[in-house]
Amino acid sequence: MTRDYITLYDTTLRDGQQTQGVQFSTGEKRQIAAALDALGVDYIEGGWPGANPTDSAFFEDAPKTRARLTAFGMTKRAGFSAENDDVLAAVLNAATKSVCLVGKTHDFHVETALGITLAENTDNIARSIAHVTAEGREALFDAEHFFDGYKTNPTYALEAVRAAHDAGARWIVLCDTNGGTLPAEVGRITAEVIAAGIPGSHLGIHTHDDTENAVACSLAAVDAGARQIQGTLNGLGERCGNANLTALIPILLLKEPYASTLRTGVTPAALQGLTRTSRMLDEILNRVPMKQAGFVGSSAFAHKAGLHASAILKDPSTYEHIDPARVGNARIIPMSNQAGQSNLRRRLAEAGLKVSKDDPALGQILEEVKAREGLGYSYDTAQASFELLARAALGQMPDLFEVKRYRVTVERRKNKYDRMVSLSEAVVVVKVDGEKRLSVSESMDEDGADRGPVNALSKALVKDLGQYSALLEDMRLVDFKVRITQGGTEAVTRVIIDSEDGQGRRWSTVGVSANIVDASFEALLDAIRWKLIRDGAA
Amino acid sequence: MTRDYITLYDTTLRDGQQTQGVQFSTGEKRQIAAALDALGVDYIEGGWPGANPTDSAFFEDAPKTRARLTAFGMTKRAGFSAENDDVLAAVLNAATKSVCLVGKTHDFHVETALGITLAENTDNIARSIAHVTAEGREALFDAEHFFDGYKTNPTYALEAVRAAHDAGARWIVLCDTNGGTLPAEVGRITAEVIAAGIPGSHLGIHTHDDTENAVACSLAAVDAGARQIQGTLNGLGERCGNANLTALIPILLLKEPYASTLRTGVTPAALQGLTRTSRMLDEILNRVPMKQAGFVGSSAFAHKAGLHASAILKDPSTYEHIDPARVGNARIIPMSNQAGQSNLRRRLAEAGLKVSKDDPALGQILEEVKAREGLGYSYDTAQASFELLARAALGQMPDLFEVKRYRVTVERRKNKYDRMVSLSEAVVVVKVDGEKRLSVSESMDEDGADRGPVNALSKALVKDLGQYSALLEDMRLVDFKVRITQGGTEAVTRVIIDSEDGQGRRWSTVGVSANIVDASFEALLDAIRWKLIRDGAA
Repeated sequence: MTRDYITLYDTTLRDGQQTQGVQFSTGEKRQIAAALDALGVDYIEGGWPGANPTDSAFFEDAPKTRARLTAFGMTKRAGFSAENDDVLAAVLNAATKSVCLVGKTHDFHVETALGITLAENTDNIARSIAHVTAEGREALFDAEHFFDGYKTNPTYALEAVRAAHDAGARWIVLCDTNGGTLPAEVGRITAEVIAAGIPGSHLGIHTHDDTENAVACSLAAVDAGARQIQGTLNGLGERCGNANLTALIPILLLKEPYASTLRTGVTPAALQGLTRTSRMLDEILNRVPMKQAGFVGSSAFAHKAGLHASAILKDPSTYEHIDPARVGNARIIPMSNQAGQSNLRRRLAEAGLKVSKDDPALGQILEEVKAREGLGYSYDTAQASFELLARAALGQMPDLFEVKRYRVTVERRKNKYDRMVSLSEAVVVVKVDGEKRLSVSESMDEDGADRGPVNALSKALVKDLGQYSALLEDMRLVDFKVRITQGGTEAVTRVIIDSEDGQGRRWSTVGVSANIVDASFEALLDAIRWKLIRDGAA
Repeated sequence: MTRDYITLYDTTLRDGQQTQGVQFSTGEKRQIAAALDALGVDYIEGGWPGANPTDSAFFEDAPKTRARLTAFGMTKRAGFSAENDDVLAAVLNAATKSVCLVGKTHDFHVETALGITLAENTDNIARSIAHVTAEGREALFDAEHFFDGYKTNPTYALEAVRAAHDAGARWIVLCDTNGGTLPAEVGRITAEVIAAGIPGSHLGIHTHDDTENAVACSLAAVDAGARQIQGTLNGLGERCGNANLTALIPILLLKEPYASTLRTGVTPAALQGLTRTSRMLDEILNRVPMKQAGFVGSSAFAHKAGLHASAILKDPSTYEHIDPARVGNARIIPMSNQAGQSNLRRRLAEAGLKVSKDDPALGQILEEVKAREGLGYSYDTAQASFELLARAALGQMPDLFEVKRYRVTVERRKNKYDRMVSLSEAVVVVKVDGEKRLSVSESMDEDGADRGPVNALSKALVKDLGQYSALLEDMRLVDFKVRITQGGTEAVTRVIIDSEDGQGRRWSTVGVSANIVDASFEALLDAIRWKLIRDGAA
């Protein structure tokens, strides 16, 4: 039997950016595009060139991807020819092989929002799509408000998408823009569109999660015959988000009837990177990953009920619908039992720490992790700090240096030119190579601007670490995340620092304190110690 | 036409408590039960009496509710009579009118997990249900792993639920315990169960969100004829959570075909309390509410795209599937660099700032927002800072006070007990009421522990703000988010502070600087200024 191919169209960089509070930099867009490409989606919608500077800059220096990088825009406005519409021209100027244009298909929107006749709108769609294909590009038509439009005026909704289809659009994407259509209705209407002459092999589905049915609506459209799914990583997107590809991809690959009747461009090996990809996006957004997310959430395979946990030990399929390893996730079982310990040993092995099965240090590490997580620490991403904690428990933590005390001052006042400026200054006292050394540093960049207390502390700390100073020259802080969290009964500050060195290594460390400077200092110390150990300083 | 009644069965207090990290106290259980009762659910499953002390204590002093308070337990074990099984006895001792017993219906589980014969299991089910009804209680049967069981051995799965039905169970609840069954299959199997003789009026559905389809699966079962839905508030529950009643209830009341063909016990007035109920639960759990939750999320009616926002102003139904007021939620049109002038005027109007369409200040505000976003500011969530920026542009920013300078020190060293401790101290000089005032503060909580430099600055700042000090007494910082972002060519720190006051208002402000303390101070100043203006200080 030949299996139909389901085309995956990712819009994290465009519709995903409509999420409240989300604004990607071009660098972040490139990083996400690379992750999507590795995952195996077919299209990456990069943004709307001309609509905002970041999107334009992204396309100007577009990454090379296997997936088709696609520019998004809208159909030409009435009163312009397709050739003379500058908004459309900006989209085409991005020079992508594929172009996706959104247009109206709901009579109410044509008349109310655009204030033009239905015939004019149909003409705008046809001419815009024809213009894109005449330029040698592949055209996709995003049929905005299609389902709402079809419910009030099916004749017009069909006329609009047929115009796009007849003008040469490779894909007609049925959008449930307001997110209010339920799965059964999406399925029925998609089937009717196919019956009306738009083949399923040219139909896409674009849903939103306003009723928490975006995944189900996408599946209903596929069941009816649509062969493209649009969605985003982690379900980012306007309002409640778009259809979540992070759930849809494993459903298509692992669940029946899809697993044995359809194909996608995602390989089983790439699927194992899914959890990591999901977490990476949260890191970029400085969001706490959703524990209860399907497939990739840290609770997705956590078995709290005692009866469940003991059955799981006999046979995981008793309470798991899939093997978590297939999506790169892991089972979580109460720390006390054997499964918890084997997880731990795997993590230690990853850090090059071989520990035998019966080593009592294993239990000690688990206790320590538990106790510190109770205080607000988190070792999910801070692998380097976890490694140091484990080394200490295993008696493999070298004495490198000891910080005796520090003091940091931030001052803001007028300078001699009567301008308000800030100044940070740090004093650090360390014991290293058997001697006490006192270092002081301001925090200034090349332009003489203050970079703050953590930077001042960091500079003072590495200024004189004796034999170790040379090893730290190529190390730099690349990200810094702070979150208020609950430690015991009090709110505390958790700082995660990402560091990088000249060899391109990146590592994360964590510090916790009610005092943000102190939490930062702790994470900084861990970062330095990890680097020194990895570079063989001790 | 008579409308079928859909019975709503809430299991927040039982299955919801299986969420990782969730453990309710009896007081919290009572508070949640009261909220569920006010909402209008039909059943409140209170827990498993005898399985843990909190659940037992809750039933011992059970709240009086209109909804049926229900005790949960499991069918009797093989080798005991129903009368002599002490686990079952503890459940019945809770003296609830209704009792829900879970039992196996999947042959694999009967043989692997229980290690008994299929006939023994059927007998356990029948005798347990008969015992409950003989005691004058209403019995519900939770058919564990029903869908997986039906797929491997439909004959046995049907035999098991038929045994419960014939023994007098008022409801047979089909459970997708592992959460792996997709909506189409749930619909098909539910229809087959009805065709096999268990009437839909006696069938319930219990789903989990492992594939992010729990809501859709519940609807599919209702479409097939099931008339009870089990779920939890905010979708709490084991692993990825249970079916989310916070989404299902508004779907049943507001969306077709349900709104006009079915009834529930939730009134339109009670529905308006839905968002408040959802937030209350998050508060009990000390969780940040999910912004993107359907219906009740703070982003659920947030319109970020400029084109959407301008259409919303013409007619909200253009981009909203329901009126947010019906679920007690509100529309948000955030600022961002994708926003247009119409969006802007709307935001200003909400802040009580009326600006005519042609006011040149509008363009000036947009320019200022864009310029500051270029520096790393973000006004998407920091509406209070946006409001202050707009006031300044409109010449409506009152002179409240002026900060002349500040200095903050963080020190870490050994105390007299030879323990490392930190200490933060701040000095702030402000000009207020025409005089210069100098305030100093340490940062200490009740236990004498250091709370850090931002806390010290905040305390010193409000310590003596002359006429304004009294207005600031009920204000507190509730969240603090930091991220490194790109401002111009340099990495800078963006701080977002969420504040709250005694009137339950919450507002967000932003500060940007390479210096984290300075960025925090800026956000803090905005938070104070916004509060003073809102409280009519100037």
